[in-house]
Amino acid sequence: MSAHDAMERAVLAAARSGLAESSRADRAVWLRAIADALTAHADELIALAHVETHLSLARLGGEVVRTATQLRFFADVISEGSYLEATLDSPDPALIPPRPDLRRILRPLGVVAVFAASNFPFAFSVLGNDTASALAAGCPVVVKAHPGHPGLSRRVAEIAREALVAANGPADALTLVEGLSAGAALVQHPLIAAVGFTGSTRGGRALFDLASARPAPIPFYGELGSVNPVVITPRAVAASGAGIAAGLAGSFTRDGGQYCTKPGLVFVPPSAEFDEALTAAVAASAGQQLLTSGISSAFGEGAAELEAEADVEVLAQAPPVDGEAAPVVAAIGADAFLAEPERFQQEHFGPLTLLVRYDSPAQLDAALAVLEGSLTGTVWYAPDDDDDALVSAATTALSRIAGRVLYNGWPTGVAIAWSQHHGGPWPASTASVHTSVGATAIRRFLTPIAYQDAPQSVLPAELRDGNPLSVPRREDGRPVRG
Amino acid sequence: MSAHDAMERAVLAAARSGLAESSRADRAVWLRAIADALTAHADELIALAHVETHLSLARLGGEVVRTATQLRFFADVISEGSYLEATLDSPDPALIPPRPDLRRILRPLGVVAVFAASNFPFAFSVLGNDTASALAAGCPVVVKAHPGHPGLSRRVAEIAREALVAANGPADALTLVEGLSAGAALVQHPLIAAVGFTGSTRGGRALFDLASARPAPIPFYGELGSVNPVVITPRAVAASGAGIAAGLAGSFTRDGGQYCTKPGLVFVPPSAEFDEALTAAVAASAGQQLLTSGISSAFGEGAAELEAEADVEVLAQAPPVDGEAAPVVAAIGADAFLAEPERFQQEHFGPLTLLVRYDSPAQLDAALAVLEGSLTGTVWYAPDDDDDALVSAATTALSRIAGRVLYNGWPTGVAIAWSQHHGGPWPASTASVHTSVGATAIRRFLTPIAYQDAPQSVLPAELRDGNPLSVPRREDGRPVRG
Repeated sequence: MSAHDAMERAVLAAARSGLAESSRADRAVWLRAIADALTAHADELIALAHVETHLSLARLGGEVVRTATQLRFFADVISEGSYLEATLDSPDPALIPPRPDLRRILRPLGVVAVFAASNFPFAFSVLGNDTASALAAGCPVVVKAHPGHPGLSRRVAEIAREALVAANGPADALTLVEGLSAGAALVQHPLIAAVGFTGSTRGGRALFDLASARPAPIPFYGELGSVNPVVITPRAVAASGAGIAAGLAGSFTRDGGQYCTKPGLVFVPPSAEFDEALTAAVAASAGQQLLTSGISSAFGEGAAELEAEADVEVLAQAPPVDGEAAPVVAAIGADAFLAEPERFQQEHFGPLTLLVRYDSPAQLDAALAVLEGSLTGTVWYAPDDDDDALVSAATTALSRIAGRVLYNGWPTGVAIAWSQHHGGPWPASTASVHTSVGATAIRRFLTPIAYQDAPQSVLPAELRDGNPLSVPRREDGRPVRG
Repeated sequence: MSAHDAMERAVLAAARSGLAESSRADRAVWLRAIADALTAHADELIALAHVETHLSLARLGGEVVRTATQLRFFADVISEGSYLEATLDSPDPALIPPRPDLRRILRPLGVVAVFAASNFPFAFSVLGNDTASALAAGCPVVVKAHPGHPGLSRRVAEIAREALVAANGPADALTLVEGLSAGAALVQHPLIAAVGFTGSTRGGRALFDLASARPAPIPFYGELGSVNPVVITPRAVAASGAGIAAGLAGSFTRDGGQYCTKPGLVFVPPSAEFDEALTAAVAASAGQQLLTSGISSAFGEGAAELEAEADVEVLAQAPPVDGEAAPVVAAIGADAFLAEPERFQQEHFGPLTLLVRYDSPAQLDAALAVLEGSLTGTVWYAPDDDDDALVSAATTALSRIAGRVLYNGWPTGVAIAWSQHHGGPWPASTASVHTSVGATAIRRFLTPIAYQDAPQSVLPAELRDGNPLSVPRREDGRPVRG
């Protein structure tokens, strides 16, 4: 069977799976069953992932826990029911225009294509957030496996499909395709209703263009590139520069710096103490073989290009170890950054961070004003009144360009929560009004429908008189608890 | 000043208006002030609109009331505050991954371009739903005026800007541009963050393609074409065919059939009584000069092409009156429809409806299965048990392709309500997960931001400890009233 035939078969099977007609209660059971199966097979899967990705067993172990938690979280979200946005208005013929009986709810959008990421072989891959939120919404999923962990992808899909069957669910709610051309064809398939993507700006843009050029365009929810700027105030450096430097080293080298939230651009005042602590921490950091040979070559080439720039000082570079990436700290002045801000906002996928040294609040403001979109923005400040104006200005600037703004912490590590937002202005996301992590990630795969003067028998149970399934609703403008 | 310079000036003025930094309370005052000014100038504006659009004074009077109601409705929506989706989670370091203090809210997206429609010179034009929801969200608006009512557009913008100033608001929160090339340049302007559009499929698609091809793509919320299928069951025809026919005639000829929700495709069993009543009602219907000469020519040509089709029977055609469009009822068999479903789903913007005669439930099912996206789908049924299966099947089929499904009524007339949905699968909307009418229309112009471990001083008031502005929030997963 050709890759294209396999893709066609996977889409048709997903479309016919019947998931859209399932109840929320059944889908919650299935999501938890998949989480349980993933957990039960953790040892086997972690070993497989370790061989294919070179990520440490400890990191992969944590990631399996995270992935199961995500699946269970979306089961909780659909059980609670407010995600349906059930809204009822009673008739009022006296209004202009007259108001009939109107009832609105969100329904599943259709079959979703999910492009798995390289760097989270569990949490943003076959059973990652995109898949979990789409299945929770009632959308069957066709996953395009990432070529960085093909064996793991197949095994995880197999385990999930077996878990669905064992829980009396539809195995074909989750199917898998492989290969670049199958992926492109998937985005253009008439039965695909939306796409979730985590990966590079170049790859994401190419698929976004295909999705937008379809005869009937579909939403493309892509999480692409991000440099995750960090601002360190002069008082923070003075008060605890060495500690911040050690934290930065830990964050940007963590698991080989292969995080979409890696702090890649750090605005910091000149400080010998900070530089020394950073250099020492980087020298002491553990090595990491990168995910694939392609990523490894691209990182090496990008780092070499940056290091060769006239204005760039190479501050720290760990000794290269055979097969492992050497962490790099480079630095430039704020004026050099401002002269060519696009050049210095290229994402380096791997253990590299670029310091931008600023001398004054005005220089910092000017630099922050030219930042492109990022998933996160970070402020390190000293908890005293004198830092208030700087923190406020940095917050205003970062709020414009980042989806998450955090304080005295590091952006690597994305909590699972109702309030999480993982997205941001282009190129962080293709669609900055949506998130790929957190409860509202489910909304990407839902579309509203309003029923007007409908007989009770055709209404979804959540919209019927008396609220038989006890979901939170808005009735005549007022929130009503389920 | 060239059209391009005027566009550039309008965008810059909007971007600098300061609207994004205004409070919800202030914006609610400004929206109500604009509504009051519109109402105060109703007579002058209605007269101007009547000359430019040929729509009746009665219809235009109702539309001004509707438009003022929409503006006040969005003032109510932002005053209530749940649209902000304020969500707070408290820290839990024991989780994997650990959860920090996280607080999420929606913030304004940026300057919005609004393309006004021809057919609602008030309600979907300079101060229409797109503008009202964008201003409510805190997004300054640059309106691209529709060339069908240029004088009215200028005067409405002038009145709105004066009302803003009188209420101590920023006049430049609303600016106006004119001309096709200025419109195209507007969609590509780096400072434009989103587009709202109501118009033709061809024009909308061209602008959608420009928005998607930008270096940084932006969301394009377009409401394009819709044929608004209607299903009439055999029992409904038998029980009240004449009344339904009269209602259909009233709906598809209303204001010259120039509604995006006009019922343009009617699935009905063969019935001589229905045909006779429809013919009689159409013959008695009032004439209407169409909005522009371009629309008038396009309608005449499209109707002539349809009438010339071999399978098409012209059932009713009102006598053409000088300058007015002649209402047309055409009919084909379900088999002919099924042979070329795309040809018979072309939208005719004007007083034309196409009957599709079906002989059996199976034939109806087959026809409904090939429908493209529409704003609405309608079912006329007899309230007795024997119609239940047909109503259920029609609901299932129409739910797939329509954003609003209604029963024993007509789709023209779109109520303003929390639960309204005005959108649908392509080509009804470019982005079917969003609506252009109803409370959630505001969400198109908002984007989430999450604050992590933020000091109280930098948080929006709606996210601070103690909920000082008393907005509805979700705290640790539980809804909390404001």
